Amino acid sequence: MTQMANTPKPPYYAVIFTSLASEIDDSYVETSNQMLALAQQMSGYLGVESARQDLGITVSYWRDLESIKQWKNHKEHLAAQQIGKQKWYSSYAVRIAKVERDYEF
Amino acid sequence: MTQMANTPKPPYYAVIFTSLASEIDDSYVETSNQMLALAQQMSGYLGVESARQDLGITVSYWRDLESIKQWKNHKEHLAAQQIGKQKWYSSYAVRIAKVERDYEF
Repeated sequence: MTQMANTPKPPYYAVIFTSLASEIDDSYVETSNQMLALAQQMSGYLGVESARQDLGITVSYWRDLESIKQWKNHKEHLAAQQIGKQKWYSSYAVRIAKVERDYEF
Repeated sequence: MTQMANTPKPPYYAVIFTSLASEIDDSYVETSNQMLALAQQMSGYLGVESARQDLGITVSYWRDLESIKQWKNHKEHLAAQQIGKQKWYSSYAVRIAKVERDYEF
């Protein structure tokens, strides 16, 4: 996830997931990788960008709100979200945003 | 910048700045801190979240498109953007997105 996402022309959607971790262990890394692989198979998935220092930021890009909803409610993803609340994250925020314009250098 | 942003109820705007750095030196850190301090003084500024591993992601939050425009065109910020292109970044992307909903844990 050290690459920049190659997204289409706007409009499309971004899910901005910001988190403070309480415990980053092997199971976190493993599950993160599994969720990334799963997300990539979802209809409407456009890309992801991620970095963590103390704060973790993962931005995933989606075609529309419907594809975001389907990913949020994916069975394995729901299970991972549950473990996230119980174990890995002390706090997090999710913001769903419509990308209206973009530019690159 | 290791804190999560305390943003108001949507709608508001997010500027998602993703970058690959070619050279992170003292002047980069100094300018980043200066720009953060400046941004916080701008009308419409709502918060910022930032993390860098290989990929750098900074998400700043704004009241509306007008406040984003004013920050983009701020004289000292324009100068920093110029140095960024010349020196610090090998590539970057800027996405301007309207946050429609959010939730926290």
